Amino acid sequence: MPCGGQGRCGRCAVVVQDGTGVRRRSTLRLTSDDLAAGYALACQTVVEGDAVVTIPPQEKIERRLVTDKTATKVTLPFIYDPAQHQPMRLFPVELDSPDMADQTDDWSRLRRVMATTYDVSDLTADLPTLRRLGIVLREHNWAVTAVVEMDTWDQPDGSHRLVDLLPPGNTQHLWGAALDIGTTTVSLYLVDLLTGEVVTKAAEYNGQIKRGEDVISRIIFANSNKSSGKNGGLGELQSLVVGTINELLERATRRAKISSSEIYKMTVAGNSTMIHLVLGLPPSSIRLEPFVTTINHPPPVPASELGINIHPQANVDCLPGVASYVGADISAGVIGSQMCDSSSLTLFLDIGTNGEMVLGDCDWLISCACSAGPAFEGAGVRDGMRATIGAIEEVWINSETYEPNFRVIPSPKLESQGLPTPPRGLCGSGLISLLSEMFINGVIDKGGHLNFDLGSPHIRQGEHGPEYIVAWGDQTEHSGDIVITNVDIDNLIRAKAAIYAGFAVLAQSVGVELSMVERVLVGGSFGQYINIEKAVQIGLLPDLPWEKFHFLGNTALQGALLALLNREYRQHVSEAAQMITYLELSADNTFYDAFTSALFLPHTDVTQFPSVAEVLADRGGQSVR
Amino acid sequence: MPCGGQGRCGRCAVVVQDGTGVRRRSTLRLTSDDLAAGYALACQTVVEGDAVVTIPPQEKIERRLVTDKTATKVTLPFIYDPAQHQPMRLFPVELDSPDMADQTDDWSRLRRVMATTYDVSDLTADLPTLRRLGIVLREHNWAVTAVVEMDTWDQPDGSHRLVDLLPPGNTQHLWGAALDIGTTTVSLYLVDLLTGEVVTKAAEYNGQIKRGEDVISRIIFANSNKSSGKNGGLGELQSLVVGTINELLERATRRAKISSSEIYKMTVAGNSTMIHLVLGLPPSSIRLEPFVTTINHPPPVPASELGINIHPQANVDCLPGVASYVGADISAGVIGSQMCDSSSLTLFLDIGTNGEMVLGDCDWLISCACSAGPAFEGAGVRDGMRATIGAIEEVWINSETYEPNFRVIPSPKLESQGLPTPPRGLCGSGLISLLSEMFINGVIDKGGHLNFDLGSPHIRQGEHGPEYIVAWGDQTEHSGDIVITNVDIDNLIRAKAAIYAGFAVLAQSVGVELSMVERVLVGGSFGQYINIEKAVQIGLLPDLPWEKFHFLGNTALQGALLALLNREYRQHVSEAAQMITYLELSADNTFYDAFTSALFLPHTDVTQFPSVAEVLADRGGQSVR
Repeated sequence: MPCGGQGRCGRCAVVVQDGTGVRRRSTLRLTSDDLAAGYALACQTVVEGDAVVTIPPQEKIERRLVTDKTATKVTLPFIYDPAQHQPMRLFPVELDSPDMADQTDDWSRLRRVMATTYDVSDLTADLPTLRRLGIVLREHNWAVTAVVEMDTWDQPDGSHRLVDLLPPGNTQHLWGAALDIGTTTVSLYLVDLLTGEVVTKAAEYNGQIKRGEDVISRIIFANSNKSSGKNGGLGELQSLVVGTINELLERATRRAKISSSEIYKMTVAGNSTMIHLVLGLPPSSIRLEPFVTTINHPPPVPASELGINIHPQANVDCLPGVASYVGADISAGVIGSQMCDSSSLTLFLDIGTNGEMVLGDCDWLISCACSAGPAFEGAGVRDGMRATIGAIEEVWINSETYEPNFRVIPSPKLESQGLPTPPRGLCGSGLISLLSEMFINGVIDKGGHLNFDLGSPHIRQGEHGPEYIVAWGDQTEHSGDIVITNVDIDNLIRAKAAIYAGFAVLAQSVGVELSMVERVLVGGSFGQYINIEKAVQIGLLPDLPWEKFHFLGNTALQGALLALLNREYRQHVSEAAQMITYLELSADNTFYDAFTSALFLPHTDVTQFPSVAEVLADRGGQSVR
Repeated sequence: MPCGGQGRCGRCAVVVQDGTGVRRRSTLRLTSDDLAAGYALACQTVVEGDAVVTIPPQEKIERRLVTDKTATKVTLPFIYDPAQHQPMRLFPVELDSPDMADQTDDWSRLRRVMATTYDVSDLTADLPTLRRLGIVLREHNWAVTAVVEMDTWDQPDGSHRLVDLLPPGNTQHLWGAALDIGTTTVSLYLVDLLTGEVVTKAAEYNGQIKRGEDVISRIIFANSNKSSGKNGGLGELQSLVVGTINELLERATRRAKISSSEIYKMTVAGNSTMIHLVLGLPPSSIRLEPFVTTINHPPPVPASELGINIHPQANVDCLPGVASYVGADISAGVIGSQMCDSSSLTLFLDIGTNGEMVLGDCDWLISCACSAGPAFEGAGVRDGMRATIGAIEEVWINSETYEPNFRVIPSPKLESQGLPTPPRGLCGSGLISLLSEMFINGVIDKGGHLNFDLGSPHIRQGEHGPEYIVAWGDQTEHSGDIVITNVDIDNLIRAKAAIYAGFAVLAQSVGVELSMVERVLVGGSFGQYINIEKAVQIGLLPDLPWEKFHFLGNTALQGALLALLNREYRQHVSEAAQMITYLELSADNTFYDAFTSALFLPHTDVTQFPSVAEVLADRGGQSVR
């Protein structure tokens, strides 16, 4: 948890249903209503006897970025032709019924028709399909619809696998699913493979969150004996994410009015840890030097082996990653963002807990991952929170009074009653916005130190050192002030410095200047809410004209969709994963130098940020050199 | 059951543990000791209230043909060279450990070494193997032994599948198992795949027997709702045979002092129904016209999918069959008997419940199956029994007194005390012997009718018509006479006629005479105990010189062994299954004519049995023309 067990962040609040066995040492961050409802801070509570404790479903209630939308129109970079692009095919087949003159076995009979009618030779089938074969053929009087997987990435010359047999005439729909398993959020597209249409989408918090917020804590949990489940920490994490996936499938198929067993293929993007966990592969080597995965390009796995509720024989195709910290989310993102479709020098970013980035054009790609930490996700910051209801998502500071003004992610309920939503904390975009405004208006200097000379009541010496008050307690939900402390500011500067240093090292390693970048493609849901101007002003993003930035949303999910629909794009993802050169920053002194240089606002070398220098000059504020 | 529920055969005896709820209508065939022990004839007992009923494990106690022997020397028709013949291979591999300069994932690292060191390219692995990969590599400091399946019959150009990773130095043994699933008996060879040696063998009654003795009753049970198990009759039969297989594995591996998870491959022979049942494929179409299987050549299936306790990723390779009633036992038997290794015109037989036979040479093969019924297995005959302790296995009749003399399969316990074993009934070889002796000595005529003119006390009018007393009640275990009735004789003649008609139709269909047959290869455990002379005298086997008959024992198991050891022989089994022309007798009038002609002793056309004609002439017995 962000505060490290000091009772300050309130993120570990749990409900003690039978409170007789526990003693609360501190109730800071809990309201009297919370206490009445049984809440306790887990880190501050001593268990002295029997107690029943529940992890509250807060996250579900407060969802915002995690949105479910019906039938978002998704644009494909090709005109979809299932016969040409789609490895899953439906074939209506009519067999001659056997008689005493032709006692050919059922399977050979079906194979014969598939070969003569459709030129589909060497058809194979799994045992569960063969177990149904005789019954289905006879039930439907030897006329059926065959669901065939024509090829997979590891058998590009054709696998011709019979996945299912349907009653005759079942040729109207063929379903697939594209999935992105984020550390925080799992997102799904339900796709009609005959039309290429995304029929519905669904998203949900990754059920693994309760066992750790970031990949590192999940890896530690996977390897620990803290799980009460019989399959240990790894088994529990595998079950948790599969639980989330099945919930999404249930929701999506209910909306589309189909059965989840009608889904015959799934492609999966995600970082390397998420892919390891969903496959039940031990992730421990990802965390330990030299940071190696078990497998970057897993084979297709039948859904039944993972417990995913689609057709049991459907292949779950986990897309290939590049390295431990540049996973399938990035290789899928590169394809989803169409980064390679142009010869322009392009920078692709996916900023979350880690900042992963790829620089290149259609001929070469180089990538790295920066351990930015979870500051921009609201963790590691005193009043940080996720981008849910009550989060301050944008801040403006009056350049004369230093009074802040802000916008809060509204509660739909309060909004419908015409009431404002009281703020609860600061989310990532709010923090970027706040940091930028403080810097541009001179509330902090380029080193991030608060300027007490301004005499503003918003700048004070707090319990934990200097801090700036963003919202007074009389405005806030929990009646406490919402502040940003010098420690928070340091954390944010370190995070942005790590990311910018990544850009710098990538560019330097291939001998280009960041100013030569022609396009910046920003993936990930976080990217969608960033204010470019402010992100540039703090030195998080390179100082390029705004029109060069493109916010693409969930590029990993888009990549998974393209790989689901089109075998050529599936191949492109493999090629991208092969082609991307991975730069290991922890082994690189250049990175450390670049990081140190970036530990200022916007940077030690302000010539790299000409637009920011101009703004500062205009405001006549502090010297920036 | 043989008597069809008339309370006469005693085969349905069960133990009623709490007898208050049942009423015994007849206790014929039960001794007072049996009654005291709670035995009841299931077919003659009415359940009138609660009762606990147990199927007694008699068969296990009375085992004889089902023998377990340690390390029988099995001869191979080739000099075994694992590097050339064996698709399962052990590779010692040493990997460079990863470092910051080479962060290649574990799997690619292993593949790289396998490709460069052993030219094993495109290695694949199943998910459970990948799940152990990282841990095993690190535990053994990057030196391991890879267990690789180089190819399978359906991927002859190479599958290169990593089946397991062992600690370094584990290169002394590599285990496989060859299995024959008979309707009655399941037999197993445990084989060292590095030397080709059969290290131990084990055999056991097929656990499915309690759900029916022959394939037809098993098929009916599979499709019925009589099973109390949640997976229905089919699931129960699948579990029962897998239970037997696992028992054999447990026994064999205990003797060899290995773990069953060290077995990396299994080949399986068996008739089509047994193969369907072990795979869990519904067998109902095998029984119903036009008698079609679901699949004649099943794909290799991981042991874990079947519940067979060898290495979970080991392939279980069920050998290919020809048709519903000419299964993998026959195609394996053709290879196991080396029928095709010679250009001699050869007849291969496997006589059990069905008489299956193949005629041909190295260029062509034609087969058929005759529904002989279970008479030669001791069923369908009043005093018939299996070839276990107490069975009369050979009979001699005095040509002047018509007094019988016989040999009984001894009880080892009684034998060790110097005591004779009292007879309990007649097994197949005893019945053949008895029928022949009765015929040659004129006790019956060529139509099988008892000759009352002889005035022998052994020939009498019994309760169920004319009968010949083989053993008086004062000699027998159950104190009742052991007899053969006219009905029994008719059944036996019909059975032998069906088999001989099969030979005749096969020969006729390809335009050869049976007398032209150069070799008769007899497979199956039944064959081992047949007296050729007597089998020829009743017209069961064609009248050929004795030296042309070769009794080969379990040719199906031998075929499974060859297929296990040598990929070329595995291919030969497939080729045999493809090459064998199946003649469906039930659609053939020629068969009916041949059958009718064979309903005499030895045959309507005695010129086909010159040696028998000679014996009859010598004895001066009845006219045979």
